[in-house]
Amino acid sequence: MTGAAAPFEPQNPDFEARVRDSFSRQPFMAYIGASLGVVEPGYVEVHLPYRKALTQQHGFIHGGALATIADNAAGYAAFTLLAADVSILTVEYKLNILRPGQGDKMIAKGKVVKPGRNLTVVDSDVYALRGGEEVMCVTSIQTLMALPGRADQ
Amino acid sequence: MTGAAAPFEPQNPDFEARVRDSFSRQPFMAYIGASLGVVEPGYVEVHLPYRKALTQQHGFIHGGALATIADNAAGYAAFTLLAADVSILTVEYKLNILRPGQGDKMIAKGKVVKPGRNLTVVDSDVYALRGGEEVMCVTSIQTLMALPGRADQ
Amino acid sequence: MTGAAAPFEPQNPDFEARVRDSFSRQPFMAYIGASLGVVEPGYVEVHLPYRKALTQQHGFIHGGALATIADNAAGYAAFTLLAADVSILTVEYKLNILRPGQGDKMIAKGKVVKPGRNLTVVDSDVYALRGGEEVMCVTSIQTLMALPGRADQ
Amino acid sequence: MTGAAAPFEPQNPDFEARVRDSFSRQPFMAYIGASLGVVEPGYVEVHLPYRKALTQQHGFIHGGALATIADNAAGYAAFTLLAADVSILTVEYKLNILRPGQGDKMIAKGKVVKPGRNLTVVDSDVYALRGGEEVMCVTSIQTLMALPGRADQ
Repeated sequence: MTGAAAPFEPQNPDFEARVRDSFSRQPFMAYIGASLGVVEPGYVEVHLPYRKALTQQHGFIHGGALATIADNAAGYAAFTLLAADVSILTVEYKLNILRPGQGDKMIAKGKVVKPGRNLTVVDSDVYALRGGEEVMCVTSIQTLMALPGRADQ
Repeated sequence: MTGAAAPFEPQNPDFEARVRDSFSRQPFMAYIGASLGVVEPGYVEVHLPYRKALTQQHGFIHGGALATIADNAAGYAAFTLLAADVSILTVEYKLNILRPGQGDKMIAKGKVVKPGRNLTVVDSDVYALRGGEEVMCVTSIQTLMALPGRADQ
Repeated sequence: MTGAAAPFEPQNPDFEARVRDSFSRQPFMAYIGASLGVVEPGYVEVHLPYRKALTQQHGFIHGGALATIADNAAGYAAFTLLAADVSILTVEYKLNILRPGQGDKMIAKGKVVKPGRNLTVVDSDVYALRGGEEVMCVTSIQTLMALPGRADQ
Repeated sequence: MTGAAAPFEPQNPDFEARVRDSFSRQPFMAYIGASLGVVEPGYVEVHLPYRKALTQQHGFIHGGALATIADNAAGYAAFTLLAADVSILTVEYKLNILRPGQGDKMIAKGKVVKPGRNLTVVDSDVYALRGGEEVMCVTSIQTLMALPGRADQ
């Protein structure tokens, strides 16, 4: 399944390994149980299965957990298009919570809208998997900044 | 210490107990180790001590954890001004990450800018406690919606 | 040409006339030379031809003029789905300026993402027409509130 | 009157002349009748007197005109802190409309929250002058990017 709208050309042929390595070094992602899904040029998915520990007072996945995976999917979507010695930083984002995070699994999908040497703009939406159907829960726009000459490690 | 800029009059005299009760029913807050600080009319603090489990790949508190407490501080700041039978929902927010979440403790401070019957707008900033000094890491604007006739439980 | 992603069912069969009437009563739209394009359920275009009076110091259409038409396209996209006695209000929006407003004409396209009884969320992007091609200049997410029992006039 | 919260040290002693010169070269500001007010390091005001041509269908100043001056106040607040050969660009902003733009004059106040070599974050609020009192109508957070080696002209 290909999620990217535009055919982006990665500068680093090893972009996927770089994304997966970076993701694996984030203790918070392991702590909440998030994992990477599809990783393509300009498009990354982050999956988060339901766990009671992640919920708010009404039993739905906490908005903060949804924001966390939306942020990560956006950051790594931008990261796929960078050169091997360039790191990425979240500048800002705005998100709307459209529906509660109710379902077996939450899937954040980050798609690069506008890559850039300095700044990359990404749409990152979160879907709840409910009975096999994906329902959009969060929509967001995110701005990321490239940090040249800084390895991610 | 009083954080609220404007002297808001709470409709519910038991607003603080209501906020603390609701907060205590959020499993995700306990899971990340967040706790409530000051709770005043139109002003709420959420504290998050540093834990390695909450970090990203560079050893700082993850942006998603910062967003989580910013969101909660905003939501409960709005909640303090509602009547006893009105619940609150996060509609949307935008946040800028100004500096990394580096410090012994993160403190989110939500201050109501504009209360309303339907919508409440809140400024919610996150500070990192570094050597006794508070350094602003995140600034955000959040929109919350009141849900009349719905208890929080 | 149909812009709406989802097949929205209008509550008011005269939605288009209502949108065009409301638009025509906005002096600021006439003042900057904006006009309505396509008006469909959940989708509205606002067009703004280049004029030197609308530019900033580098000769491009001012970001404020782009925001103005993005805001209007979003508001009227939401308005198409409301009942005849319900008015609409912009609550908030966030926009990213991706490229300068350079071209013969700017076209804002508002598409409803999530309709609602109280709140409607809309994606509204602005494109510059450059040599017959549409180039995205602005992307935005907007939140609108329905005001029941208030005519627009 | 000093609006800046923090004591910012300008890199260019002629910052005010540079701001006023740049502002005067924006045809859209003249077209809507906006003018500069206070210009201090990290703080700029833009004033917009009421004119019927600037209104929406309910007789209030159009949200797009409010966004325009909020954007300009933010951009020039950031501009005051830049070196003489550095230009400024709006990356993105998010604004909430708190109250209608109703009054004799609208005053946008941009205050730098976090200056930076690449990015500057600014709070920019718009007040309506109603019977001598300032009422907040718009609150916004804006991100600006410095463009080194580019004169503004």
